[in-house]
Amino acid sequence: MNKELLTKGKQAKAAAYELGNASTLLKNKGLLEMAKLLLKKQTEILVANERDLQMAKEKGISQAMLDRLTLNAERLQDMAEGLRQVAGLPDPIGEVLSMWKTENELQIGQKRVPLGVIGMIYEARPNVTCDAAGLCLKTGNAVILRGGSEAIHSNMAIVAILREALKNVGLPVDSVQMIENTSRELALEMMRCNTYIDVLIPRGGAGLIQSVVHHATVPVIETGIGNCHVYVDSDCDLQMAKNIVVNAKTSRPAVCNAAEKLLIHEQVAVEFLPKVVDALEEKNVEIRADEKVRALLPNKNLVPATKEDWYQEYLDYIIGVKVVANIDAAIAHINQYGSKHSEVIVTNRYDHAQKFLQCVDAAAVYVNASSRFTDGGEFGFGAEIGISTQKLHARGPMGLKELTTIKYIIYGNGQIR
Amino acid sequence: MNKELLTKGKQAKAAAYELGNASTLLKNKGLLEMAKLLLKKQTEILVANERDLQMAKEKGISQAMLDRLTLNAERLQDMAEGLRQVAGLPDPIGEVLSMWKTENELQIGQKRVPLGVIGMIYEARPNVTCDAAGLCLKTGNAVILRGGSEAIHSNMAIVAILREALKNVGLPVDSVQMIENTSRELALEMMRCNTYIDVLIPRGGAGLIQSVVHHATVPVIETGIGNCHVYVDSDCDLQMAKNIVVNAKTSRPAVCNAAEKLLIHEQVAVEFLPKVVDALEEKNVEIRADEKVRALLPNKNLVPATKEDWYQEYLDYIIGVKVVANIDAAIAHINQYGSKHSEVIVTNRYDHAQKFLQCVDAAAVYVNASSRFTDGGEFGFGAEIGISTQKLHARGPMGLKELTTIKYIIYGNGQIR
Repeated sequence: MNKELLTKGKQAKAAAYELGNASTLLKNKGLLEMAKLLLKKQTEILVANERDLQMAKEKGISQAMLDRLTLNAERLQDMAEGLRQVAGLPDPIGEVLSMWKTENELQIGQKRVPLGVIGMIYEARPNVTCDAAGLCLKTGNAVILRGGSEAIHSNMAIVAILREALKNVGLPVDSVQMIENTSRELALEMMRCNTYIDVLIPRGGAGLIQSVVHHATVPVIETGIGNCHVYVDSDCDLQMAKNIVVNAKTSRPAVCNAAEKLLIHEQVAVEFLPKVVDALEEKNVEIRADEKVRALLPNKNLVPATKEDWYQEYLDYIIGVKVVANIDAAIAHINQYGSKHSEVIVTNRYDHAQKFLQCVDAAAVYVNASSRFTDGGEFGFGAEIGISTQKLHARGPMGLKELTTIKYIIYGNGQIR
Repeated sequence: MNKELLTKGKQAKAAAYELGNASTLLKNKGLLEMAKLLLKKQTEILVANERDLQMAKEKGISQAMLDRLTLNAERLQDMAEGLRQVAGLPDPIGEVLSMWKTENELQIGQKRVPLGVIGMIYEARPNVTCDAAGLCLKTGNAVILRGGSEAIHSNMAIVAILREALKNVGLPVDSVQMIENTSRELALEMMRCNTYIDVLIPRGGAGLIQSVVHHATVPVIETGIGNCHVYVDSDCDLQMAKNIVVNAKTSRPAVCNAAEKLLIHEQVAVEFLPKVVDALEEKNVEIRADEKVRALLPNKNLVPATKEDWYQEYLDYIIGVKVVANIDAAIAHINQYGSKHSEVIVTNRYDHAQKFLQCVDAAAVYVNASSRFTDGGEFGFGAEIGISTQKLHARGPMGLKELTTIKYIIYGNGQIR
């Protein structure tokens, strides 16, 4: 094993056992100290960030990437405020979810405990470093962070400050660690480091997520690929449908809960299509249309959708549009092509609403609301470490509870079997 | 992809969507029909089993393996009774765990739903075929079974009958499928079949489990390796300690919740060691002892324990015995060498009991009771598909609830963000 990973893995494991027993009070003190130091020492972070930005510009990375990489006083304020908010949330660790007595008088309880050591592999955004460290600290988990090479100086500066805060309050410093080696080889080793890492959470684009899913032997929580659909049913409020489609597609097209596809019941297509296409085009959305849509709007000269389109997550001002025969065809299409993230029906029919909620296989299924609400904050979790699109362990937005596991505690008085 | 896996995978996925919406009544009817047909057609199964037994004898497999492979009228009765019991358990599917309202009047609920398609990879025991099919049917999951080559004829006969039962009551026949190809290549393909399999549960020896963990890209629930410890504390009822040690080691040494190691506080070692060693030797248990144990029992000529011993799951009449300085040394030893399955302290000290429960990292932690209780039936789950030793998704005995996931259902009235 790579020496850096071995050393940091061992240290993280030891820190995790100590942190798992730390009091709520002390963990909260650590979070507040982190927030304080982050602002007090912001110059160090901004200088390091400037170095990353210089190198990124020399490499000629895109404006969008540069924006994600950039830190400033306001963003540091947000990061500090995020830590303070996490300090204010209830501590999930130690909760006994249920406790029962068996016939032979054993008392068996299900107690919430930390996962142990969490590995985070992510891309350019340095604020993830701070968010992840805060959420892991609150839940008693040690974290090994491995951010992208573009943000390495910013990340190292942030982590140095977070570790200083841990030290100041008397928490194990190695609870938060950053891998300095940003090579692909090290990331691969990290994915197979079952000895020291209990769970791996990748955050980033589809390429990163798929790479982790395919190479990891450490248990993974797959996050954040969203090929989300809005299905406009035969009997519905078309004004509401238009508002939801436009909001789901255009309020923030680069995020995973944005709509990527629009399915329209054929009975309302003639009336609804021109309206929604005009509204989308007004927002500069490119329409990729199936044959029926193009036949209904011959003067629009719309881009034909290919089979590939139905699978794609554009993360851009593009939407695939298709006319379907009925709700069953809509559900079948979503279950075949969707990424099981967030799916929406707009309908006034009770039976269709219930059928859609029941039969669509996704983390979040909506009746008459925008898919954009799939978010830890909007769901009321107070914080979010990502959105799981797998079925094991956590599904949908992951808050503090999703960073925990359980252990059975059993009180006996000499029972044998 | 292998043609058999591709065909059965597609069929399973389609069946899963149908089965996920089947009523509790119909699923229970299916389970009872399975039980009925299993007994009615037992001759077919016993003839197939005879074929497997013949081949196994020709290959010269061990008596223990032969025993696990053998079916008879009594074992078929047990299998049928198991199915009937599962029919009698409450259906976890459809339960809404909680539902809340957000500030903007969205109603968000967490609803329990099936995982989808479960892949089971297991070894020689044909009763697992029937148990797994029953538990998956009850929880609305389709299952793709891949048993060992030794039991292939028995497994195919059982599955044919279970499928006939599904057909008789009008449930999708492809909800239960058996892979005929027992090659290692096919097992490897199954581990990477993310398109059609949602979760993989391996059941068998350490070799099989490790192979699945290392090769799978499908999310895995790791089961059943138990290097369990009993720690006898300074201040405790030594008679109780002896009873627990003997029970945990010898009541069924080949199962994962049997004790494999005994740690003794040095203050009670002089008094306790001779008693417990005599009791274990009376049951023909081989003692592998550390230096201090051997020094305390010079006349016994005990086998010295090697470093390897502390990691080993014997599944046999063997136990590793070690003297420790205090409870902290015991906890550190367990956390370093244990397999995070079931761990026991025997103590009369309140503070030591609480410390052990808090600091030992395992699925089940006991005070004053035998580790042998880690079992779905003993915990009151009514059924068990295995014992998880990982921290993701399920930990400890897995009953019906552990074969489910959740989906968020959201009722809106036009909300946009």
